[in-house]
Parts: sequence; structure tokens; C-alpha cells
Amino acid sequence: MPSYKAPVEDVLFLLRDVLHIERMGNLPGFADMTPDFIEAVIGAAATFCEKVLQPLNQVGDRDGCRRGADGTVTTPVGFKDAYRQYTAGGWVAIAGDPAYGGQGLPFILATIVNEFSASANMAFSMFPGLSQGALATLLSHGDEKLKATYAPKLMSGEWAATMNLTEPHCGTDLGLLKTRASPRDDGSYAITGQKIFISGGEHDLTENIIHLVLARIDGAPAGTKGISLFLVPKVMAGADGTLGMRNALSCGSIEHKMGIHGSPTCVMNYDGATGWLIGEANKGLAAMFLMMNEARLGVAIQGLALSEVAYQNAVAYAKERRQGRALTGAKEPDAAADPIIVHPDVRRTLLAIRAFNEAARALILWTALKGDIAHRSEDPAARQKAEDHLGLLTPVLKGVLTDLGFEGTVKAQQVFGGHGYVSEWGMEQFVRDARIAMIYEGANGIQALDLVGRKLPRDGGRALTAFLTEVQTFIRENADEADMKAYTGPLQQALEHLQQATLWFMQNAMTKPDHAGAGSYDYMHLFGLVGLGFMWAQIAKAALASCAEEGRAAAMQAKLTTGRFFMERMLPETAVHLARISAGAESVMALPADLF
Amino acid sequence: MPSYKAPVEDVLFLLRDVLHIERMGNLPGFADMTPDFIEAVIGAAATFCEKVLQPLNQVGDRDGCRRGADGTVTTPVGFKDAYRQYTAGGWVAIAGDPAYGGQGLPFILATIVNEFSASANMAFSMFPGLSQGALATLLSHGDEKLKATYAPKLMSGEWAATMNLTEPHCGTDLGLLKTRASPRDDGSYAITGQKIFISGGEHDLTENIIHLVLARIDGAPAGTKGISLFLVPKVMAGADGTLGMRNALSCGSIEHKMGIHGSPTCVMNYDGATGWLIGEANKGLAAMFLMMNEARLGVAIQGLALSEVAYQNAVAYAKERRQGRALTGAKEPDAAADPIIVHPDVRRTLLAIRAFNEAARALILWTALKGDIAHRSEDPAARQKAEDHLGLLTPVLKGVLTDLGFEGTVKAQQVFGGHGYVSEWGMEQFVRDARIAMIYEGANGIQALDLVGRKLPRDGGRALTAFLTEVQTFIRENADEADMKAYTGPLQQALEHLQQATLWFMQNAMTKPDHAGAGSYDYMHLFGLVGLGFMWAQIAKAALASCAEEGRAAAMQAKLTTGRFFMERMLPETAVHLARISAGAESVMALPADLF
Repeated sequence: MPSYKAPVEDVLFLLRDVLHIERMGNLPGFADMTPDFIEAVIGAAATFCEKVLQPLNQVGDRDGCRRGADGTVTTPVGFKDAYRQYTAGGWVAIAGDPAYGGQGLPFILATIVNEFSASANMAFSMFPGLSQGALATLLSHGDEKLKATYAPKLMSGEWAATMNLTEPHCGTDLGLLKTRASPRDDGSYAITGQKIFISGGEHDLTENIIHLVLARIDGAPAGTKGISLFLVPKVMAGADGTLGMRNALSCGSIEHKMGIHGSPTCVMNYDGATGWLIGEANKGLAAMFLMMNEARLGVAIQGLALSEVAYQNAVAYAKERRQGRALTGAKEPDAAADPIIVHPDVRRTLLAIRAFNEAARALILWTALKGDIAHRSEDPAARQKAEDHLGLLTPVLKGVLTDLGFEGTVKAQQVFGGHGYVSEWGMEQFVRDARIAMIYEGANGIQALDLVGRKLPRDGGRALTAFLTEVQTFIRENADEADMKAYTGPLQQALEHLQQATLWFMQNAMTKPDHAGAGSYDYMHLFGLVGLGFMWAQIAKAALASCAEEGRAAAMQAKLTTGRFFMERMLPETAVHLARISAGAESVMALPADLF
Repeated sequence: MPSYKAPVEDVLFLLRDVLHIERMGNLPGFADMTPDFIEAVIGAAATFCEKVLQPLNQVGDRDGCRRGADGTVTTPVGFKDAYRQYTAGGWVAIAGDPAYGGQGLPFILATIVNEFSASANMAFSMFPGLSQGALATLLSHGDEKLKATYAPKLMSGEWAATMNLTEPHCGTDLGLLKTRASPRDDGSYAITGQKIFISGGEHDLTENIIHLVLARIDGAPAGTKGISLFLVPKVMAGADGTLGMRNALSCGSIEHKMGIHGSPTCVMNYDGATGWLIGEANKGLAAMFLMMNEARLGVAIQGLALSEVAYQNAVAYAKERRQGRALTGAKEPDAAADPIIVHPDVRRTLLAIRAFNEAARALILWTALKGDIAHRSEDPAARQKAEDHLGLLTPVLKGVLTDLGFEGTVKAQQVFGGHGYVSEWGMEQFVRDARIAMIYEGANGIQALDLVGRKLPRDGGRALTAFLTEVQTFIRENADEADMKAYTGPLQQALEHLQQATLWFMQNAMTKPDHAGAGSYDYMHLFGLVGLGFMWAQIAKAALASCAEEGRAAAMQAKLTTGRFFMERMLPETAVHLARISAGAESVMALPADLF
């Protein structure tokens, strides 16, 4: 049975030594972020995730969610009690607006908690994750009455939420959606249509579920310009939160799927259900994208989270399992065989996962901090810069961290040999659970298109320029340090690849957009590698600065070694991505569809 | 529900235009291999796999195998009847020795049939696959009495077989195995011990199951030098094949696992079961390796087979599913949206799978043909050359084709978006089934060590030298052809990377074996890419030669385009593998085990 220990030490190292969170004291709400306070919050989250959520992960996978003939959905044994404890701890709204009952803590703390809970039990963590996303949308776009009625209940976790975008014939292309919203005299709308792939569409954890539903108001324009966003509760609620009648919506079925069995994926039928407009009519997509962006970051975290827990278990197995001898002679001659962690190929496998995990965590926390700046800073220039960063990095994080996180789980499973394929050991569940993160909230190919087609050109490339400049400045400022050369050298090379790829798009893709489409996926991964490499360079700098401190030498040396592994063996992949991008669209587009 | 169409046209193209099988007429048994005969055999196999095996694939996954309280194992509904038809068709022993009831056809034909059946139903195909491997071992090492009693029943499929290597504490390191064999006065042995991960260890398809079991004769040396191979039938059999008493062995449990649910993975308990020695005492590992090598090629085929069927379904979906518009403007303006095959990123995904599949098939068939030469040629030099090729290529095919085949299924699943994650569509089953191929018959890390540690240095590097020379000669002979430059140019570059990597090992790994261990996995993949690239260059040459033939222009143009895609976008990965190999073992070995 797999185990999990939240990486508290690593998080504290990143916050303190890499992100220097103590320098953020002038950001509203950050003055209280003392090391002790942060440690207390993170420690409590770690304990809860390790002791309560993780033990339910395998049983949740095995038993799954069950839909009764009456349309009710039962979550796995133990989920209800764990959810009660989770909400009692105030974890749902850790970063929520205190005006509605949230704890008002920085987004970066919520991000840390989300990593821990997704590692411990990804399927479970989706329930509060959806509430967080819905709250962001509701508070930004909803009117006061909607906010007052629904936000406190979502913050407390008494009610849960969903996002309803996909329909049987449309997922990526929401312009095709058919769900209708007919205005009623009382200002509400009658919502009619079918939505699919609705995570948490029906369950027994909460007494009410608040559905955010995209639909088309009667007479609205076709395509994406005629889509509005509605709040549709499962049970009608008074302004004071008292529950009334069931609304005209139901869960028609739940999907049998590859993983995340503890999270019900529902077909939702709306049969003239009562809903209220959130934000402006026909501007629903923009409002939903706020939720999507938050959700995309949450999905990126899932990629890291599963890679992390898979790594931990692979390491434990590699230290325990004995097969063969070290190539340089027996390490433990008195035992029948050496532990397999002596074998270079096992170490290579483990280090590849770890070198990803630690940089991915840094990239996520760095971006989460930008989220706090974007929301909290009183300096408009700082806010704009942080918004630029978020917009640019969100598709990269979602696409790259879920791809590489999935690969991490596959690699970790491989360390177990045949036992990795057997359900009992839990490794194959990590692979199955991690796989969805590459698909939902916009399949990774869509993230790549978002990055190349929208985020790069936006505002004359301002966000990209700022990012490239920041990396280049760091390299320049540290290039003279002898101990940093092993990091800044490869990073410089990778940065140049990213610059060349960008230039190639500018020169070739403006007139032939297929060149952008054919290279977008590689560009996203090239960008992601530069981002991860930038994190490793900063981690190395912090490790060099701290390795003389008492008791830290070993841990800091581990950082420096893992970072070198990344620079030598993973970052050079940027060259292949650049080669693919520069190859252009010709061989990709040449084949007529009927010859595939 | 997924579908499957056996790639008969592609196989015929490879046999005729690339491998020039008509030139092999002087090889015993090949004179009858007329195009009509080959087409008839392959066509019949295709029909059977498409119509009988494929429809059972999803139900086999869903229902799986069940073990009763009495230790019996029931296969999924329909498997029994399909197996009856399969054996009635003579497919088990298509390449088997006619002296024992086999059909005596070339191994390359059996290989083709094995691809089709693994695509159609991988779990099912494992039953006859195991019989084929056991037959190879029995006929090479067994005495006449064992052969006469067991081979005909295995050839006909009346009886099935297994291979028993793994024990709870040892898989890779068979030197640790504990199962005992105590000699009895009648020349038989009493076999006692527990084996795990035994595919097909118990089932209801046949009236008898012949277990090939590795065990240690009382008093035998420790380690791998004291292991012998035994034939242990489930039911005792007379010399004429009449069945007697149950032997003292049983299936203790079956594993719950990630995939191949239609194939029971058994814990087998031997409680003084009667067995007979196959080959010499204490030489069991060598005998078993013959079975392993055959099995490894079979597993490589599974990698291709699942990638192929996944590709076919992804293409069908991409032509049907409509989302968004082509970047260059609507392709089908009258429809609400274009089929997603217009999108460059979808095409990139499909082409990456296809470019792998078609070259992988060529590499397998080329190697299978070498297998026929090794078994049939009357020229000792030709036999030795073919044996060299088989020894060198087997770990490459097993390791690379299963890694890339798995990636192919993951990519194909991605094309389906959310539907790819839902069981009903069948794509996630391909991913789960394909995953085991990277693990069993020697995890891929072991294949890499076998390649670098054993196969490269063997006979002074004779096999490698022959391979490199063959590729170099092809390039030289075709370098002047203008139309070939797009293929020979990149291949030359990749070949040089392989040469440089080999040289690096020669210069660095002799004294520091960890350098070989740390680079072995990348070397295996670098080798595999050169092999696939060599296939594409030969396919391109054949396509250029044939594209003027009536009716073949479109198909040959598709080959040329797909090959160009491979050369531009996949073969350049050799540079990264070389960079990793040249980085050496330092960062891989530096971290003490307790810091992982």
C-alpha cells in the first residue's frame, strides 16, 4: 500500500530561500506570513492529507462512486467523513475573501495545500478544487445578491460546486453549444440541455451543489459570442441559505473511466432548471475563463502532485527491493543482493522524476505568488506584470506539468517492475489518475495553441519579453560565479533556443498559421523546460548560499546534484523542440485526410 | 466501441517492396512463399482477428478472469470459443516443426499473425504466444520423450503453456530463486515453491497446462549457476497424451492489475509437483533464455500492435469529430465545424504514431526474417550473421518498441479528448494493456543493460559492427539520389550519433561501468531510432521506386511524407540521447541513497 509524506521541507526552502517570501511583507496580507505561521498552516495541512486523505485514496479507486436508480450518487466509503473534517478545518476557502467567510490567506498557501491534497487523494481533492474555482468566478462576476447567497456556503464547504461546459458534440469548440436559457419574468432563466463530463455533478458530500452552466439565451448570436453563464443550484435556496425545492436537473449517468474513480463524472440533464445569470449576457465565456484559468493552475498542480507521491513510493521501493549487485561490486555483501537503488538506471529514473518535481514545485509557487501580487498589490504596474506572467505561464504549467507529471508516474511505476502493474501496490493508480490532467480543463494541445496563438502576441509580446528578460538578467547577474556555471551555461543555451523558436514563429507563422499550429506543442514544452531550468538555476543559487549553514549541507548538496542532472540530461531537449518547430508545417499538412 | 482492420496492405508492401521476400526463394521453405500464398494466409488471419478476436477485447477487459474458491480460473465470456476457432485454424503452430504437427511456415508469417492478434485482443493473444515460446524451448532442449509427449499437444493448441521464473523476492535477479527440485527414483523431480506473475497459470481454455518452471535441484550451486528448467504439467499425461491425475500444483490467487484483464496473472504453488528436467541440470537459465528471447520479440510486437490499433481509432475519430476551424479558414464551411484532422496539432499527433508504427513493423519483419535465416539457412555464415542480428536487435526491439508503442497509445487517447478517458471508447484500455509490455519479459531497463553490457561487447563487437556497416553502406549507395537526400542525410547524422555514443562507452565505460549503466537506456533508444530511421530510408527508397506504378502513387506519397515527418521530427532525438550518454554517471551516482 502506497504512502505519502507532504514535502514540507522543500516547500519551506522554496518560500524562504528561493522566493524570499519575507521580502513580500509590504503586500497586503503578507505581513502576517511569518515563518512560524506558514509552518503551522502547512504542517496542519500536511498532517491532514497524510493521515486522513491518503488512506482513502486506494479504497476510493477500488470502490469508486456509485449512482443509484434514483439518480443519487454515493461517494466511496470514508469520503463523507473526510470532507466534513476538511471543511471543518476551513481548508476550502483558505485564500477566500473574508467578507464571505474565507480565511483571506495568500493564494500561495492555498496552492501548497492543493498540492498536498492532490498527492494524497486526487479524486477527493477535486471536490474542494471545484468550489474554489466557482468562487473565483462568482465573486468576480456575480451580483451582490448571488454572492451573498452562495459564496458563504461555498466558502464553508457546506455546498459544493461544478463547472458545466462540455456537451456531447462540443468540448473544445464551445461555440457549438446548444444548452438553452429562456428568460422568465422573475429575472431567472429556464435552463434546458445536456452537459457531459461534469466532475462532481452529483454526490452525497453536501446538501447542495451549485452548478455554473454555460448556455445560450434565446435569440443570442451563434458561436462563442452568444454564450452566457448561469448559476443553477441543485436545490433552490433562499437568500438566507435555507433550502427549498429540488431544481429541475438531474444526473443521468456517471462515466466508467480510466481513473479518478472517487470523483463522479456525470452526465447532467437540465430540464427547465432555474438559473441566474452571472455577469453580463453573452459574456459567459470570459467569466468562465476566469474559473478555467484557476482550474488550469489546479490541474498543473495535480501533475506535480501525482509525480511527487509516485516518486516517494518508488524511492522507498528502490531502497528496500534487493535484486542484483552494484556494477562496481557488492555494496552490501552480507545480504543476498543489493537494494536496487545502487543501479545507475534506477537512479537515472528516480532523478528524472525528482528533477522535474522540485523545479515544477518552484514554478508553481512562483506563479502562485504572482497570483497574490495580481490580486493584492497596490501598485498597478506590479499588478499588470503579475497578470502578464499568469496569462503566459498558465497554459505552460497546465500543458507541461501534466505531461511530465504523467511521465513521472509512469517512470515511478517502472521502478516496481511487475509489482508496478498490480493494483495492490498503488502505482498504477497514480498513472491512471494522472492521465486525466493532460486532458481536462482544455486538452494540452489546446494549451499549446492558447500559448502560441493568444498569449505570445498579446500586447505586442509584452509578457514574453518580460519573461525572457527576467531569465536573461538572472543569467547575466550570476554568470561570473564559478559554481553557477554548470547551471547558467545550459540555461543560456536553452533560452537561446526559446528565442530562436519565437523568432522563427515571427518570421514564418504570421503568413502561414499552420507553422504555428505544427510547432505549438513543441514550443510549449520548450518554454516549460526553460521555465524549469530557470527554477533550477535559482534553486542552485539558493543552495550554494545556504550549504554552509549548519545542518543544511547534505540537503543543499542534493539540490545541487539534482539540478546538475536536470541541466545535463533534461534541459538539452530544448534542441529537439527547436528542430521540430523549425521543420515547419510542410510534412504535417501534406497528407490528405483520407490517406491517414 | 473501437474497431480494428489488420494492416494487410502495409505488410504486403514491406514483404515485397522493402524486404524483397521473393529473393529468399533459396531459403528452405520459402520457395512456396508466393505472393498469392502469403496473401491468403495473412488475409485469413486478418479476418479472424478482426471478426472473432477484436469484438472480445472490451468485454475481456471489463469482465476479466475470475478465480473460483476451488482454484479454477474462468476466462471472459467468448474466449473459450474463440480459442477453439484459433486452434482449429492451426494458428498456434503456424511456424512450428511439422515433425510435431506444426505447419512449418516461415517465422515471419507467424510474426505477422501475432501482430494482428495482439492488436485485436492482446490479452487473448498471450495464450497462444506462451505456447509458441514454450515449444521453442522444448524442441531445442527437451529430450525425445518429452518432445513426443508434449509438443504435438502444444502445437495443436489442445494444451497451453506457461513460463515460471519470478518468485516473490526475485524477478530480475533469478540467482536468488528458491523453488526446489528433489530428484525421485523414477527420474522425475518433486518441485516445491511459489511462483508469481505467471500469465495463463490457470484457465479454462485447455484441458492441460504445461508449466516450464525454473528451480534449484537439491545441492545445486547458489546463484544463477544452480538453476535448472523443468516441465511440470497441470495434469499428468501418458506418452500417448492420455490424461491422468492432477499434479500437485495450484493457482493460489490471481492479481488485480492495470490491464490485460483477459489474461490471468497467477500465483502458482508447487507442492511436490512432478516435473521433468528439460536439458542439462544447472543449465536452466540458458534454456529459458531461448524462450525469453522469443517472448521478447513477441512483446515488442505487442508494443507496435497496440500503437497500431490505437492509431486507427484515433484517425477515425479525428475524421469524424468536428471542433473548430482550420487555421487557414473553414475547410467545410457548410458544416458547423471542421473535422479535427484539419488541425496541425492533431495531425502532428497522428503522424508521430504512424511514423513509429510503420517503421516498427518494418524493423520487426526484418528481424523476423533474420530469424528464419538463422533457423533455416544452409550457409553457416548467413546463419551466424542472422543470429548476431537477432541477439543485438532483440533487446532494442523489446525496449524501444514497447516504450514508443505505449507512447503511441497515450497520444492516440489524447486525440479523443475527454472521451479518451472514458472506458466505453476503448482508448484507455489500449494504454493500460500496452503498459505491461514495458515491464514483463525483462523490464526495459534490463533490456538496455543486456544491450550495452552483453550484446555490444560480444565477439569483439561483431554484431554491432555488422549493423553499423549495413546502415552506412545503404546510405553510401543511395546518397547520390536527389530524392533520397531527405532520408539519408538525417540518417547519416543519427548514425554518427550512435557511433559517437559507442565510442564514448569504449573510452569511458570499460574502467567505470557506471558510465555504461547511466547511459544504457539512452543508448538503447538511440539505437532504436537509428533502426527505425534505417527502415524509413529503405521504405522511402521502395516508395520512390513504386510511386509511378498504377494506383500506387497516393499510398507511396503517404509513405514518403510520413518518412519525412520521422526524419524531421523524431530522428533528431538521437542528439539528446548522445548528450545524456556523454554526460556520464557523475550526477547519477553522486547522491547517497538516503538523500533520495
